[in-house]
Amino acid sequence: MLIAKHQNIIDNAVKANHDRTFYAQYPEHPKAYGEEAPPQGEASFKSLLQQPFPRLKQKIVAGWAGEEVSPYTGEALGITYPLVDVEELVKAGKRAGQRWAQLSVADRAGILTETLEKIQHHFFEIAHATMHTTGQSFMMSFQASGPHANDRALEAIAMGYQQLQAYPEKQTWEKPMGKISIRLEKSFRAVPKGLGLVIGCSTFPIWNSLPGIYADLITGNAVLVKPHPRAVLPIAIVVAVIQQVLEENGQDPYTCQLATDTSEHLITKELCEHPDVALIDYTGSSGFGNYVESLTAHGKTVFTEKAGVNSVILDSAKDIDAVVQNLAFSVSLYSGQMCTAPQNFFIPESGIRTPNGNIPFNEVATRLKDAVTALVNNPKMGAGTLGALQNEATVQRAKEAHNIGGKVVLSGTPVVNEEYKNARTFSPTIVEVSSADNSIYERELFGPVILLIKTRDTDHSIQLARQMAAKHGAITCAAYTTDETAKDRIADAMNSVFTPVSFNFTGFIWVNQHAAFSDFHVTGGNPAGNASFTNQEFIVKRFVWVGNRTYME
Amino acid sequence: MLIAKHQNIIDNAVKANHDRTFYAQYPEHPKAYGEEAPPQGEASFKSLLQQPFPRLKQKIVAGWAGEEVSPYTGEALGITYPLVDVEELVKAGKRAGQRWAQLSVADRAGILTETLEKIQHHFFEIAHATMHTTGQSFMMSFQASGPHANDRALEAIAMGYQQLQAYPEKQTWEKPMGKISIRLEKSFRAVPKGLGLVIGCSTFPIWNSLPGIYADLITGNAVLVKPHPRAVLPIAIVVAVIQQVLEENGQDPYTCQLATDTSEHLITKELCEHPDVALIDYTGSSGFGNYVESLTAHGKTVFTEKAGVNSVILDSAKDIDAVVQNLAFSVSLYSGQMCTAPQNFFIPESGIRTPNGNIPFNEVATRLKDAVTALVNNPKMGAGTLGALQNEATVQRAKEAHNIGGKVVLSGTPVVNEEYKNARTFSPTIVEVSSADNSIYERELFGPVILLIKTRDTDHSIQLARQMAAKHGAITCAAYTTDETAKDRIADAMNSVFTPVSFNFTGFIWVNQHAAFSDFHVTGGNPAGNASFTNQEFIVKRFVWVGNRTYME
Repeated sequence: MLIAKHQNIIDNAVKANHDRTFYAQYPEHPKAYGEEAPPQGEASFKSLLQQPFPRLKQKIVAGWAGEEVSPYTGEALGITYPLVDVEELVKAGKRAGQRWAQLSVADRAGILTETLEKIQHHFFEIAHATMHTTGQSFMMSFQASGPHANDRALEAIAMGYQQLQAYPEKQTWEKPMGKISIRLEKSFRAVPKGLGLVIGCSTFPIWNSLPGIYADLITGNAVLVKPHPRAVLPIAIVVAVIQQVLEENGQDPYTCQLATDTSEHLITKELCEHPDVALIDYTGSSGFGNYVESLTAHGKTVFTEKAGVNSVILDSAKDIDAVVQNLAFSVSLYSGQMCTAPQNFFIPESGIRTPNGNIPFNEVATRLKDAVTALVNNPKMGAGTLGALQNEATVQRAKEAHNIGGKVVLSGTPVVNEEYKNARTFSPTIVEVSSADNSIYERELFGPVILLIKTRDTDHSIQLARQMAAKHGAITCAAYTTDETAKDRIADAMNSVFTPVSFNFTGFIWVNQHAAFSDFHVTGGNPAGNASFTNQEFIVKRFVWVGNRTYME
Repeated sequence: MLIAKHQNIIDNAVKANHDRTFYAQYPEHPKAYGEEAPPQGEASFKSLLQQPFPRLKQKIVAGWAGEEVSPYTGEALGITYPLVDVEELVKAGKRAGQRWAQLSVADRAGILTETLEKIQHHFFEIAHATMHTTGQSFMMSFQASGPHANDRALEAIAMGYQQLQAYPEKQTWEKPMGKISIRLEKSFRAVPKGLGLVIGCSTFPIWNSLPGIYADLITGNAVLVKPHPRAVLPIAIVVAVIQQVLEENGQDPYTCQLATDTSEHLITKELCEHPDVALIDYTGSSGFGNYVESLTAHGKTVFTEKAGVNSVILDSAKDIDAVVQNLAFSVSLYSGQMCTAPQNFFIPESGIRTPNGNIPFNEVATRLKDAVTALVNNPKMGAGTLGALQNEATVQRAKEAHNIGGKVVLSGTPVVNEEYKNARTFSPTIVEVSSADNSIYERELFGPVILLIKTRDTDHSIQLARQMAAKHGAITCAAYTTDETAKDRIADAMNSVFTPVSFNFTGFIWVNQHAAFSDFHVTGGNPAGNASFTNQEFIVKRFVWVGNRTYME
């Protein structure tokens, strides 16, 4: 059985998940995967272009369509994917789910870990697919869609493996009643809730989808994977591997189906509202996310990651240059298209305290501008850090950023990518506003735009950052302070609105990054989303404990 | 610290909760509490009558009211309770909650276990209070509102104690980066969601409320306890003890407040919709329960137990008399006013197989009728088993039961209670209907009414019972079969609609009873309710994991 083969991986993951220590089953260094892997992956990606995607096991197909365009080349990938009637998807998923539910959680964990072991052989292919659909740099595409996503999936497997074994399958229950006693055999089943639906986004088509897919599967639910029509290939490769491993192990490949649609005819709502769809995982805009959340009133179990407004609170620092360099990288990384990217920088009007004296507000602004400028103009770093803008709406937002109001500190401009001349790449715009300009900074400005907000003092900064998180949601908050009492005040205030704080990050670690096995991604407590990768709730809401009792003579 | 004093109790409860073995911290035998306890409890109850309830610590009071009437004597208890403005309740609750949240879960567990240890000294007083508000018999009042409820509360404490310690408070996270490594201090907080509201019912004012109250409290939330205006006293006694223990241990007694109202001016919706109320536990009718569930779309976390239609599937039996006697007791116990009481008996038209030959349908009906008649007319058993009907609506339903359609097998009549001549006591009505009469058996007939439904065969019985549970919800299902394959079919079908099955119960164990530490009460998976005493979800949805990270030089 595959569980015996992978028991060690699962046990390590369970332990890491509890201990919250650093752990990675899949190394993030491309070199860990051998010399052959990079060219093979690239060749494999290229072989998929300009034809129907050949690997899925789904045979009942109503048509083929594809509309992906590379943000780097501006050219269509020309790949088409099967379009399947919603009723067919649901019917096949339900049938497959009934069989999948019969397996023990250990058997499911074995098969699912095997899928991850197989997916790693596609990491380079997936990296190219991610790059040319999302606009992420090659390195981010490799790490986020490859090892990091696999580790997040393993985290969900491990959590499910443990939660579903929280109670014994059978137990003799003996109640003493004076001279006699009553004996019952009690048995406990974790019954899967039903068919799952995982709705992907265009910027992180794998990283944001794998936790929901694997959480559904480990808890015994079949799953429909609905990608964004502009970012199908990365997850299609993954679904195909899952289907292959399922089939190789005598399971129904329809346990995990790709549910492709087109921008012209989206099937997301139809899937969401289908009475047989019990579980929905969603990543994307708050508007649609709020609609998905409203379906809880109709009995759906819903997990969302929506938009938020992430803050940086600058109070004091040991080394202002190290701080500014770290933040310059954070705001430039994938051009602010990460849900974890900082947007609102709250800086006291009196400036920032350092061991070398006070740095006035304007100087902080200037140093940040200089650090960003140096980074984006560095031929070895700039284009690679920024990546490309995924879609036209973000391009427009980047182009208009200097008009949003306030004082422009740095006006974003197109940046040349030497390798891809047509890449949609823009440097960040930095705008200074006053704390009264809440109409400007209360919005999520998805893309390469950051705001420097002048506050009365750090407590004012905290108050505003807290208010933004409570009202509009927040996924991250970065804070810089050398004052322990300020640190406590920041942590208490932001945690009270269910926002995690990263303190004093400098060097090779950034607020944007959430590591599997130790960082909860999104807390589920504020408007940025109702779910969290991966807390207990993310798993236990997908199944129902049912206990049977039999009288023992 | 109280945690040291009670560590053993908590550890035992945690272990029992996992092992699902028989466990009771609070013995269900009244004799376990000493000879003095019964008369003292009765005297204490009587001393509370005809005056304002004196024990609560809540001082800001807008008025006093009470409308409880004993279902045994027909007389008003004459006790009044404080009426507090909703805004005052919320304000005081929020303030208290902020302080309560600062305690470690271990400290909270210590204090909460101390409350249970103190509540046990009130078990007899609570028993009289329960009897004269709900109409339960004295013994049921004692057990359900006393030891069984305390054990359910302890179960919630134990589950919270464990879940909130699932992750370390602090951990050093070290990521190797080739020659260097990055070190972060990661810390994890279980942040309480906010103010809780627990809405009680008139039939089980303590048993159904304590799990929510203690689940809110152990996870760090303050709680408002909103009793049914006709069943306040039992829970008022409990809330007063909790407030006293809180105060004795330097905590704010407003952490747990009684939120009384009147039938004339109910405050339930006002409380539910208050923006500061984050958590709602509800027991009661499906109509209001559905309203409460709809509030999830407004960001409330909601736990409900509503109505269901519980089935009995009769296929085959070793000893039909033992079966019929067990069922006669189940249907008579508290006159069908338990949410776990069986209502729909599915019996094949061909009858029931036994080792002594087939028992035809009509004979099964006759034997059940005879067993019920013998029980209710037994002077030592009848009135005590039936208890009294809690309210006029149930009395009307009992009186009209013979008119619901179908063939009356046994017509319920008033039963004389020798001790309380005015007790509202009725024997059960048994009606035979055909499987086509779904308009009759698709309703919850709360009270002393059961239906014998003639089916084609056991598979037809299973199909209908499954359908009822899926459509209308079910909290229990009793099944009798000596056929292992039928047993599997019944378990699979009912479990697929998230309904537990109790097989072949005879003797001193009844389908109505759900034991703390081993039986999940309500599964949360069908329309009978969205929550379960006490699975992981019942606890983990009440708080949010938030992780902070600090860069370590």
